[in-house]
Amino acid sequence: MIEKRKIILDCDPGHDDAIAIMLLGAFPEKVQFAGITTVAGNQTVDKTFFNARRVTEYLGLDIPVYRGCEGPLLRSPVLADDIHGETGLDGFTFHDLKRSPETEQGVLWMLRTLREAAEPMTILATGPMTNLAMALRLEPEIAGKIREIVFMGGAMGLGNVTPAAEFNMFADPEAASIVLSSGCPLVMAGLDVTMQALCSEQMISRMAGRNNPAARLFKDTMTSYCAVECKTYNVTAAPLHDPVAAAWLLRPKLIELKPMHVTVDCTGREGYGRTYCDYYGKGGGRANCRVALQLEADAFWDLIEEAICRYGA
Amino acid sequence: MIEKRKIILDCDPGHDDAIAIMLLGAFPEKVQFAGITTVAGNQTVDKTFFNARRVTEYLGLDIPVYRGCEGPLLRSPVLADDIHGETGLDGFTFHDLKRSPETEQGVLWMLRTLREAAEPMTILATGPMTNLAMALRLEPEIAGKIREIVFMGGAMGLGNVTPAAEFNMFADPEAASIVLSSGCPLVMAGLDVTMQALCSEQMISRMAGRNNPAARLFKDTMTSYCAVECKTYNVTAAPLHDPVAAAWLLRPKLIELKPMHVTVDCTGREGYGRTYCDYYGKGGGRANCRVALQLEADAFWDLIEEAICRYGA
Amino acid sequence: MIEKRKIILDCDPGHDDAIAIMLLGAFPEKVQFAGITTVAGNQTVDKTFFNARRVTEYLGLDIPVYRGCEGPLLRSPVLADDIHGETGLDGFTFHDLKRSPETEQGVLWMLRTLREAAEPMTILATGPMTNLAMALRLEPEIAGKIREIVFMGGAMGLGNVTPAAEFNMFADPEAASIVLSSGCPLVMAGLDVTMQALCSEQMISRMAGRNNPAARLFKDTMTSYCAVECKTYNVTAAPLHDPVAAAWLLRPKLIELKPMHVTVDCTGREGYGRTYCDYYGKGGGRANCRVALQLEADAFWDLIEEAICRYGA
Amino acid sequence: MIEKRKIILDCDPGHDDAIAIMLLGAFPEKVQFAGITTVAGNQTVDKTFFNARRVTEYLGLDIPVYRGCEGPLLRSPVLADDIHGETGLDGFTFHDLKRSPETEQGVLWMLRTLREAAEPMTILATGPMTNLAMALRLEPEIAGKIREIVFMGGAMGLGNVTPAAEFNMFADPEAASIVLSSGCPLVMAGLDVTMQALCSEQMISRMAGRNNPAARLFKDTMTSYCAVECKTYNVTAAPLHDPVAAAWLLRPKLIELKPMHVTVDCTGREGYGRTYCDYYGKGGGRANCRVALQLEADAFWDLIEEAICRYGA
Repeated sequence: MIEKRKIILDCDPGHDDAIAIMLLGAFPEKVQFAGITTVAGNQTVDKTFFNARRVTEYLGLDIPVYRGCEGPLLRSPVLADDIHGETGLDGFTFHDLKRSPETEQGVLWMLRTLREAAEPMTILATGPMTNLAMALRLEPEIAGKIREIVFMGGAMGLGNVTPAAEFNMFADPEAASIVLSSGCPLVMAGLDVTMQALCSEQMISRMAGRNNPAARLFKDTMTSYCAVECKTYNVTAAPLHDPVAAAWLLRPKLIELKPMHVTVDCTGREGYGRTYCDYYGKGGGRANCRVALQLEADAFWDLIEEAICRYGA
Repeated sequence: MIEKRKIILDCDPGHDDAIAIMLLGAFPEKVQFAGITTVAGNQTVDKTFFNARRVTEYLGLDIPVYRGCEGPLLRSPVLADDIHGETGLDGFTFHDLKRSPETEQGVLWMLRTLREAAEPMTILATGPMTNLAMALRLEPEIAGKIREIVFMGGAMGLGNVTPAAEFNMFADPEAASIVLSSGCPLVMAGLDVTMQALCSEQMISRMAGRNNPAARLFKDTMTSYCAVECKTYNVTAAPLHDPVAAAWLLRPKLIELKPMHVTVDCTGREGYGRTYCDYYGKGGGRANCRVALQLEADAFWDLIEEAICRYGA
Repeated sequence: MIEKRKIILDCDPGHDDAIAIMLLGAFPEKVQFAGITTVAGNQTVDKTFFNARRVTEYLGLDIPVYRGCEGPLLRSPVLADDIHGETGLDGFTFHDLKRSPETEQGVLWMLRTLREAAEPMTILATGPMTNLAMALRLEPEIAGKIREIVFMGGAMGLGNVTPAAEFNMFADPEAASIVLSSGCPLVMAGLDVTMQALCSEQMISRMAGRNNPAARLFKDTMTSYCAVECKTYNVTAAPLHDPVAAAWLLRPKLIELKPMHVTVDCTGREGYGRTYCDYYGKGGGRANCRVALQLEADAFWDLIEEAICRYGA
Repeated sequence: MIEKRKIILDCDPGHDDAIAIMLLGAFPEKVQFAGITTVAGNQTVDKTFFNARRVTEYLGLDIPVYRGCEGPLLRSPVLADDIHGETGLDGFTFHDLKRSPETEQGVLWMLRTLREAAEPMTILATGPMTNLAMALRLEPEIAGKIREIVFMGGAMGLGNVTPAAEFNMFADPEAASIVLSSGCPLVMAGLDVTMQALCSEQMISRMAGRNNPAARLFKDTMTSYCAVECKTYNVTAAPLHDPVAAAWLLRPKLIELKPMHVTVDCTGREGYGRTYCDYYGKGGGRANCRVALQLEADAFWDLIEEAICRYGA
């Protein structure tokens, strides 16, 4: 029997967010979207809102998209436009949107949806967790309607935006701290595991073999993204962060998890946004998060390919 | 010509909040309430919500009251129950409420009210500024609908809850920081000026001379409050904090203001919640706040007495 | 019977340090100098070392002067050259020095002196407390040879270099923290009391009435210092900080003290260098410091005048 | 031609410090000890002073040992007695000491030695860097007499005492910060590389094959140390931290270094003591430290074995 999750995707597309949408959209028997909320992160919320609408329409996915918060809770805003470019999705060809935009504020829609939900829902967060934190602070009782929060973010090793911090955590550490202490079941797919999902030129060629919209999306976005990543970090293959978190919803066995106590640095100093993961359990804090340690990379890429194939031809 | 403000009172009654409600309710020609939002602070939000409803009904004021956030943005919750007691309004006799409670969440009501307002409104904040900060973060554009934010909080001198901090700032420093950097016009009535509004036994006797509900409210709440304050701080008269901020809305000339750059300590360390007021203007920051320096205390008490008289007999 | 203290003066002259030296040097029956150590503060240690030698020789005081630390423990160096000028003692006429400089490092001399002292000594600190902190860390047991540490620094109210901090504390907060937690008896003369020792033009005229070196020193240094202070803070009389701390050694009754728990902000943030004084005793910390609250200003100025007169003619 | 270094070892023995002494003592043609200074760290300074004297005498090494600072610059003291036991060197049999202890304070000796040195010396730091920081602050010009500082400490990955920090950095972050910003050439052997020098039971057997004092020292100390480490971290072989840093002095080619900007967390919060290593060079800070990335583990163990063999039989 296949378990099916009802999910809200909270994201900031963003190249890897786009692939995460493509991936999840391919498996409607496993994942049913209530909607997508967008947030400032890889680019401004206006652009991530627009990009989420572009990607879903382009892929023929019937998912409502909402515009959420336009900046982090407390810190000064940071974008990842050095990576994701001027549009937030550089490399992908624009097309006209037919569906008119949702007008309800993203956090308010999220609150209403959870409040009215018959069964607890899963939240997949692939951007800064501002929307989620706002919702949890406005109506803490909605935690009871959240089955789990799966997020891409954090690191036990080196950060990617500072020596301390991964981008999504760095972009709103205080929001992440609210989520980490919310009591909701948490799954963290941080750099430790997403750095194992390396997209090389060969991988782009493999995925671009199909002649369908998903394959073209993959090729266009990944070609642009990987070029920038490889140059920025002086590497030859780029980590496909967000789809790793998404993959866990489809095939949890791909990822080895270890429960531990995780907190996030809210000092505003050099450690700002770092996730402190008590791997050795020496600190005595409650294990509030299952942290991803290992990815079965080959099977992950097979899953991506399977998803692409499902989009036709 | 008398200028009339349309206001939202965001409060946590609390003894001095109750007197502020009484004071403003007496001058409908100057202050028109859109509504009252309540927040956790002097007591839990359940109790401050209840108390605001109690006080308004008791005084015959037709003002809708809303329940806002039940805890601060980030920090662990703190209450001032050592001062305001188990009920948050110890000393005041309970009575049955007739008006049924509003069910809309306070922040959402505040957002909707400001969004729909024809003219900018004044917000008087006499508790931790959690509700206000949440609203400003959810829909930053509502700042354009705020004429000014007048708040009781902060200090240039010693704090009253720690050596560094005044209670309202200490109870949600991050919320205060959001408000202080919001760009809205701000008036700060901190301890420097509220410590000049000292309520002694003689003052209670004077105000209790009238035989009306307002006089009884003053006597009952202030007798309890002053006894605790005087014992806690080893003094003989207690500062009537919140009504000083309220008084500025009625008679701005009572208070001498000086524009300066004000920020709040969000370190979570010993300085947590302290307001840094650049009195000498050495820091070069923009003057974002007019800070109250001096109160004409005699005229302030005359105003309180005038307000009480307006409630009859 | 007059009690006589053996003291080490740790200072950074500095106009007000110079007056403190003059003041103490006038009362050899009450204060016997073991020596003077100098530190970076109002100016570089090279300049404060030179200035201390200049002032003592000029006044005919036979006191060895040592060069101490050239920068704070941790923080980036800050000087008060905006106040004390290029030389650290602008306004005072240079003369040639006859006494050759001491070559022993100030902290090492201080350690040796205390180690060898038959009786506990008093330390008067009128600059950043770097030297003292280094000595206490190198050989903690010397605390037993310290009768008391009297320091000019800190504030319960507004700071003078930032909204939070007084200069001496700001210039080396970590050093101050080491001293405050050293267990040594402490007397703090902060801005709260030194702002009561206001030197106006009239006061300069009064003190300059005598025709002796001390009167000329007072006139020359204070004329320059007061002009800058008054302009910087937009006031008409300048606080004579360091001599207030020195005065306590001569006439303790001039100053009202209150024991309380005092700590210093070491966050490196906006509160950096602030002294948190638990005036209300709510924090529960041990009273580690007697904090000066009130100065008998008239008697203080009489004492300054008496000191000047003792230098002759 | 063999290059010979004149070194000061600053340490806190500690089991792995003891092996580092043994290792370096075996190669007098490469390393000439000026002396050993000891510091509080793995145990109190009284114990580490005693242990350094025990180990050198036991191995017949004619090296003067000095007692340095008894606690960290600012933070509250922490020991690693959970690992190194009550004596700091549990498992090693005591013997009577013949050499009388040096009485000069360690920092003062270090200062004098560097001041008088004809050629710049190397400092190997295998404990908290308190002594070194104190010396650099007292007489900054001695930096010119330091050829390089090689230290065991820090991590790019997980810490071993908290999720953020390695023990030596955690035990005195402020001292480490002073050293890292001193301008001296620095080599950091952190957990990233010392976790590659894993000592298993098999390794202990191999090293214990010889019948000489060094072999017995290795066996006794490592048996005790590895048992505790393996239990504490739930592993089967224990990292031999300090000897890795020492090995670099003998055979630099064993270790791959990468220059980068390194700072240490001095916030006193969760990140306290973490080393921020700008591996990707994104931060723009000057490369102040060469950080060890890779160890040739087999060659390292061969070197340890060679050292043991040199102690006879």
